[in-house]
Amino acid sequence: MYKVKVYVTLRESVLDPQGTAVQHSLNSLSYTEISDVRIGKYMELTIEKSDRNVNEVVKEVCEKLLVNTVIEDYRYDVEEVVAQ
Amino acid sequence: MYKVKVYVTLRESVLDPQGTAVQHSLNSLSYTEISDVRIGKYMELTIEKSDRNVNEVVKEVCEKLLVNTVIEDYRYDVEEVVAQ
Repeated sequence: MYKVKVYVTLRESVLDPQGTAVQHSLNSLSYTEISDVRIGKYMELTIEKSDRNVNEVVKEVCEKLLVNTVIEDYRYDVEEVVAQ
Repeated sequence: MYKVKVYVTLRESVLDPQGTAVQHSLNSLSYTEISDVRIGKYMELTIEKSDRNVNEVVKEVCEKLLVNTVIEDYRYDVEEVVAQ
């Protein structure tokens, strides 16, 4: 069994209005040292062992369903979990 | 300047209907080895140096604005960026 952590972020060149709104809120709460906020998604997938390679499965599902590769980048970590 | 990465996840005991919906979609796209999906948030904050400690600032903003601590957990990494 694998635990896969997927981090999805907007590409640098894409505006992030949600992040800007959060930054303004923080600034108005007196946290003026916060100069930028970018908001992304974080997903944890549990993948059982199969005859497909786990890296291939993760890349396929990210590109088909989880990530809009036109405006988003992603990276992931795979961790193997040994059943106790 | 610090780059802070904040990961927000639903607590284990809290149902995640969005994750369940994604899992069913993936299973119906023939990725049947995916047995669980949990969806969280990922935020990147840029924080300028100030007289407040960066860890205190991050904890305060997480608990005041970014995280609903009743149903969510968070963790964060702080990375110092040296201007070139």
